[in-house]
Amino acid sequence: MHLVLWCFMQWVHVSQSEEVMSLKIVCSDLEGVLVPEVWISVAQATGIEALKLTTRDIEDYDQLMQYRLEHLRKHRLSLADIVKVIESLKPLPGALEFLSWLRSEFQVVILSDTFYEFAAPLMRQLGYPTLLCHRLKVDADGFIEDYIIRQKQPKKKAVKAFQQLNYTVLAMGDSFNDIDMLKEADRGFFIHAPESIRAQFPEFTSTCNYQELKRALVQVHC
Amino acid sequence: MHLVLWCFMQWVHVSQSEEVMSLKIVCSDLEGVLVPEVWISVAQATGIEALKLTTRDIEDYDQLMQYRLEHLRKHRLSLADIVKVIESLKPLPGALEFLSWLRSEFQVVILSDTFYEFAAPLMRQLGYPTLLCHRLKVDADGFIEDYIIRQKQPKKKAVKAFQQLNYTVLAMGDSFNDIDMLKEADRGFFIHAPESIRAQFPEFTSTCNYQELKRALVQVHC
Repeated sequence: MHLVLWCFMQWVHVSQSEEVMSLKIVCSDLEGVLVPEVWISVAQATGIEALKLTTRDIEDYDQLMQYRLEHLRKHRLSLADIVKVIESLKPLPGALEFLSWLRSEFQVVILSDTFYEFAAPLMRQLGYPTLLCHRLKVDADGFIEDYIIRQKQPKKKAVKAFQQLNYTVLAMGDSFNDIDMLKEADRGFFIHAPESIRAQFPEFTSTCNYQELKRALVQVHC
Repeated sequence: MHLVLWCFMQWVHVSQSEEVMSLKIVCSDLEGVLVPEVWISVAQATGIEALKLTTRDIEDYDQLMQYRLEHLRKHRLSLADIVKVIESLKPLPGALEFLSWLRSEFQVVILSDTFYEFAAPLMRQLGYPTLLCHRLKVDADGFIEDYIIRQKQPKKKAVKAFQQLNYTVLAMGDSFNDIDMLKEADRGFFIHAPESIRAQFPEFTSTCNYQELKRALVQVHC
């Protein structure tokens, strides 16, 4: 056999077995992927149309958050009012079963742009997967004063951190704020992403439901 | 008021509130802390005395592992034989309740020198907290050929990684292989550690049971 071809085949063989043998961690977005979009739910429960916008609509997260806080102040909505709405939410249909399977097969960390104060009731329902997100600054009267981002590019940096701990990172998300995470990861997957976002980033495996995503993950894993 | 004194008081005030406000993650050891020592259990179940040694007895982990693998080979014990023993183990009394509380209050990641192949049955019982550990190399006949360390100083590097993601790290362990993790962490706690190890490292808060550890963690948190 031609030596170059032989070397190439050896390389393919080693690459494949290394991929299979490597330690894998799944970094997953939360809202839209495993649970409903919190702000949309708050908008629906309160009737405040302005709160319906998400990172799917406004790419700049700070701009989006300032806009949201402004509308909360305008309507005198407190943190407790929002938590009350979140407490009525359930994980998306099939999310709990999917996440249970995921946690039995991989290590899983949720990377989200939500806030611990919002996420708590949902995390309880999801069986407390590890969640890396942000936090809120609340004033003495219980109104949200500001939000405190953990760090810039939080999802991308978390992916890098796990790679530096020698993990192969499989990332899954649905929106603009997931793109740098998907790009940084060893493999990126869309689930429930709108057609417009999927079309912009054809390099990521696109799945429409948990069954499809499970099949795609199994292909990488086995 | 003297300006220097005023500045100092402001600094103390800011430092204290920063500590309270910071995002916290708990990095916990597994064996001896939440579940029984796997190798001791295997030694008891198989009657192989040599397998009773742990990182509490031999500080050098590679030396300890080579010694263990040598004895497994000598007694023709396969991975399946060991997993069978592990499947019969239960978390330590009170561990599940403690871990549930911990996960509701903090983000939690288990940092262990065990192997995914061993840990699986215990992780299922603990509700799949995120686990960073090592893996085994198993031959075609199901015998453990070797072990593959994820990276050198795995616990210390994981703590550093979470600190770089802007988390305050609270670490808890019981043994020699936890020391660099406890040192690297913002706060280190012993639980179930033998007196000999506790005496060598008086800088770490020493607790004897989950109630004491919970009290110590609450003090940092609130």
